[in-house]
Amino acid sequence: MRVVVAGAGSIGSLLAAHLAQVADVTVLTRREEHAAALRERGLRVSGRSDFTARLDATADPAALPGDAELAILACKSTDLEPLAAGLEGTLAGATVMTIQNGLGAEEIVAAHGEWPLLSAVTFMSGTRQGDAHVEYVLDTATWIGPYRGTTEEDARRVAELIEAGGLHAEAFPDLRPAQWSKLIFNATVNGVAALTGLPHDFHFAQTEAPSDLGILVRDLVDEGKAVAAAADVELHDDPWTMNVLATERGHRHFPSMLEDVEARRPTELESINGALAREAWRLGVDVPLQTAVYRLVKAREASYSE
Amino acid sequence: MRVVVAGAGSIGSLLAAHLAQVADVTVLTRREEHAAALRERGLRVSGRSDFTARLDATADPAALPGDAELAILACKSTDLEPLAAGLEGTLAGATVMTIQNGLGAEEIVAAHGEWPLLSAVTFMSGTRQGDAHVEYVLDTATWIGPYRGTTEEDARRVAELIEAGGLHAEAFPDLRPAQWSKLIFNATVNGVAALTGLPHDFHFAQTEAPSDLGILVRDLVDEGKAVAAAADVELHDDPWTMNVLATERGHRHFPSMLEDVEARRPTELESINGALAREAWRLGVDVPLQTAVYRLVKAREASYSE
Repeated sequence: MRVVVAGAGSIGSLLAAHLAQVADVTVLTRREEHAAALRERGLRVSGRSDFTARLDATADPAALPGDAELAILACKSTDLEPLAAGLEGTLAGATVMTIQNGLGAEEIVAAHGEWPLLSAVTFMSGTRQGDAHVEYVLDTATWIGPYRGTTEEDARRVAELIEAGGLHAEAFPDLRPAQWSKLIFNATVNGVAALTGLPHDFHFAQTEAPSDLGILVRDLVDEGKAVAAAADVELHDDPWTMNVLATERGHRHFPSMLEDVEARRPTELESINGALAREAWRLGVDVPLQTAVYRLVKAREASYSE
Repeated sequence: MRVVVAGAGSIGSLLAAHLAQVADVTVLTRREEHAAALRERGLRVSGRSDFTARLDATADPAALPGDAELAILACKSTDLEPLAAGLEGTLAGATVMTIQNGLGAEEIVAAHGEWPLLSAVTFMSGTRQGDAHVEYVLDTATWIGPYRGTTEEDARRVAELIEAGGLHAEAFPDLRPAQWSKLIFNATVNGVAALTGLPHDFHFAQTEAPSDLGILVRDLVDEGKAVAAAADVELHDDPWTMNVLATERGHRHFPSMLEDVEARRPTELESINGALAREAWRLGVDVPLQTAVYRLVKAREASYSE
């Protein structure tokens, strides 16, 4: 079976390397030197896995194999529109799976081709150690569901392939309950981390003193839950419980939005906090705190040019 | 007339240098080398004034002149408690004036001595260019009112002395309306600047798009006004108007709380945002956004040790 993984950040690299254990994998990168490094040196995984995967790689969408059955678009949400535009007319026989944070990835891809589409959210994490080396940090699962022209059975086949490669994955009849749980979790934890400079640590669950950060985190989650309820989404996991459990892992995870603002890079704000705020406004749900975090991080991005 | 200025940051330096034009000034510093620099080189003022003042300086409270009639405590609010403690038993004949941001400075000083007390807030600004050089940036006024054992007439005499030295000052029968205007302005502008990294620029007054920062700023100001109303304080200036006017000056002021978090220094959060939040809680006023900013900046300070 031939698989394309587009995007070789930490998530794309983890997927590509593990899938290469059970399939023929071609990685689509933005930079040709990145593709060359992967072709020449393979892709090393350290941490929870330890091997070097052999795979093909290219920076040219037109050079992707015509017989790929599955293409996973694993870039950041900010890079998805140009990636999908570049894939127009390619991957004719492939099912395309999005795995971005936030909402709206499926619609972006759907506008650029007739591919059958799967939705995914992932809870695993890794750290890029270079173009040809990724560290596998959190071995939590990737969840997959049908979106357009696909069924739960299609999602299950992809989940089984990912499991065969050594990662964790699970198929669902409807991904929205999981997607929204992660949306609310990410809007809250990523936003607060970006503004405070704190990794996702114990402060996020502290609720004793009136000045404790956890009270704000809980109130932000409650606003998100109200939006989900208005959107008729029954959450798969309680984002507050997700938050508390994550802080108890003792791992001090640095959310990507914090890493982005510290490096003065564009964040995934619009597809996460912006998407949640717009859903709330559309549905008439009052979310003053989520809106405040959205405006503050947006202003933080505006400060890059100061 | 003999005057003591305790604290030689930008505000203390501006006051000391200008007052030295019309009075005998002794500056109390924390570091002896700072005092030595002032004794030896004088205190240069550039910017809106341009002169070098001759004055005395010491780092030892016990060495302060016994016949001082006025002592201005011009340190940051975070340094006031140890400063006032160090002044216990000194300055027997002096009226003591506080000039800190936020609320609570007068109570802190009152607990350490029987001095007659004046309250002040200042809207001028400067930039320390070194131990013996301060740049005078904004030539707005310092406002003074009675607090304990003093009258408006006492406030007027100090205002006249400051005016004679070349700065702007005004006396009021009750300083609380001005103090609260500045409290609400500072809690909002300093807090938002510290979280976003933005100087106090046009973003703070932008209210067109739903994601605009100015909407949050206005909502924060509205919460502050509700607290002032509950505390029976009729504001001297509308903090929203203060905000808009300041952003129109085109000066791109960097609020001290932003400078503090970027240098990973303790901020004046507790005497500004903490004081406002505690007043709101005491009075039963709901201030979710001000409380959010308070918790976020507090968490930002906690991130220094990460």
